[in-house]
Amino acid sequence: MGYLHQGHISLVREALKLTNLTVVSIYVNPGQFAPSEDLSTYPSDFHGDISKLMSVPGGVDVVFHPTNLYDYENDMKRNKNDQGVRKNLEGKGAVVSCLEESGMGHETWVRVEKLENGLCGKSRPVFFRGVATVVTKLFNIVEPDVAVFGKKDYQQWRIVQRMVRDLDFSIRIIGAEILRDNDGLAMSSRNVHLSAEERGKALSISRSLLGVKSAAENGHINCRELRDSVIQAVSEAGGRIDYAEIVDQESLQAVEEINSPVVFCIAAWFGKVRLIDNIEINL
Amino acid sequence: MGYLHQGHISLVREALKLTNLTVVSIYVNPGQFAPSEDLSTYPSDFHGDISKLMSVPGGVDVVFHPTNLYDYENDMKRNKNDQGVRKNLEGKGAVVSCLEESGMGHETWVRVEKLENGLCGKSRPVFFRGVATVVTKLFNIVEPDVAVFGKKDYQQWRIVQRMVRDLDFSIRIIGAEILRDNDGLAMSSRNVHLSAEERGKALSISRSLLGVKSAAENGHINCRELRDSVIQAVSEAGGRIDYAEIVDQESLQAVEEINSPVVFCIAAWFGKVRLIDNIEINL
Repeated sequence: MGYLHQGHISLVREALKLTNLTVVSIYVNPGQFAPSEDLSTYPSDFHGDISKLMSVPGGVDVVFHPTNLYDYENDMKRNKNDQGVRKNLEGKGAVVSCLEESGMGHETWVRVEKLENGLCGKSRPVFFRGVATVVTKLFNIVEPDVAVFGKKDYQQWRIVQRMVRDLDFSIRIIGAEILRDNDGLAMSSRNVHLSAEERGKALSISRSLLGVKSAAENGHINCRELRDSVIQAVSEAGGRIDYAEIVDQESLQAVEEINSPVVFCIAAWFGKVRLIDNIEINL
Repeated sequence: MGYLHQGHISLVREALKLTNLTVVSIYVNPGQFAPSEDLSTYPSDFHGDISKLMSVPGGVDVVFHPTNLYDYENDMKRNKNDQGVRKNLEGKGAVVSCLEESGMGHETWVRVEKLENGLCGKSRPVFFRGVATVVTKLFNIVEPDVAVFGKKDYQQWRIVQRMVRDLDFSIRIIGAEILRDNDGLAMSSRNVHLSAEERGKALSISRSLLGVKSAAENGHINCRELRDSVIQAVSEAGGRIDYAEIVDQESLQAVEEINSPVVFCIAAWFGKVRLIDNIEINL
């Protein structure tokens, strides 16, 4: 989605190790935003993104930066600058996120019907439908052999893996580890919207996740207690919890005790910013 | 789906004109049958199909005949004969047609959410979801440049076209004309289940469709009257109408008067056999 940070660049480095032609996709996908969500304020800096990509040793071959992947009447028209692109996306956002649209517009959606339900799917009901659909479009246009996704969006990564299996894409999906700033905050384009104070409070997320991991490794495997400790820490810091779940790494189903590989996934609001984070616990 | 007749062979001939490598897919897709439908009695004759394909001048290069496109645990195991394949498909049919399945089974579905609603979609609610999904799998496995679909399954053809546009497959979709037996009955694998008497009665479908086309060309453009004439003729012959609609050729939305290209689509039961047919009217 652009507004690149070192987390994205680490995905590019991973791809450079695996292939001899690397494509970076920069596209704020209106299909995964509900009308109520932050499409219009999602940060963007295309020229800054290009500079960052130019400085990656080894280099990127292609930047895939389409104007609008849903406007079939006008897909030959290109806006002249980023401002125009942005405006165009805003105008289209509500339309493609809405099932009720009439006429000959976009109407084909890919859904991963079990994995999309929990975690982020609960509070963002059209999100993963939009992700699976735009990733299908991306795969059909770019035809990659390997694709790298960040494990920061853990559910998204698992959904893409499942979709690739179920629809027989011959593409290898790589999950790349979360990158964190020095203070522990998981890198995210949305962090730019945090005030200094909110940012300080948001560190409760990564701190309490690390606490849970080490507690689990020391034999505390009761998920209810582990969840409660995180919910308490983040709430006391002023965060509003969207969800905090300990789930199986493959099925993303909640577990009661940790005795197999799990991941602790959390989403919480600090001010107007919704942050997500997770940590794998491999017992 | 196999049990090939001359209608299928005409698709193969069409493909041979367009490409230098032709793949024929023969797969009775459990994903498009509801548990109540005729998966278990759908006719099959794989060795007969191969003989028919061998006799096509110019020849077919590949027959794509997978055992089971939904069983990810066992997709390396192959049953030894057709009987086994059939049995296997029957066992899986209810499972993949059902949303409620638990575990790590198939869960990704492609839906063309507007075009799938009317006509056959009304009485077969999981049908086009299954078609769009298995065609996506087919396209990802075979990676064709051109794909030929029969216009006998008119709604299916339009759904595949729309899906290809919306998901950016770089595949050209060709619609091939309906082939009819000498008596006018549209060729279909299911015709084998008709008794001689039922077959005679079923001719009311093609006869009344032709009547409507010539009436429209002579200025009778009121769709209600045209529909009623077909419904009456087919009902009087003993057919039970599932639907009979005059719709726009692209949007498949019902029209009231014919003053643009439309298609008359009909589905009707004769005994235990559900037949579909259609005729384009280009005014």
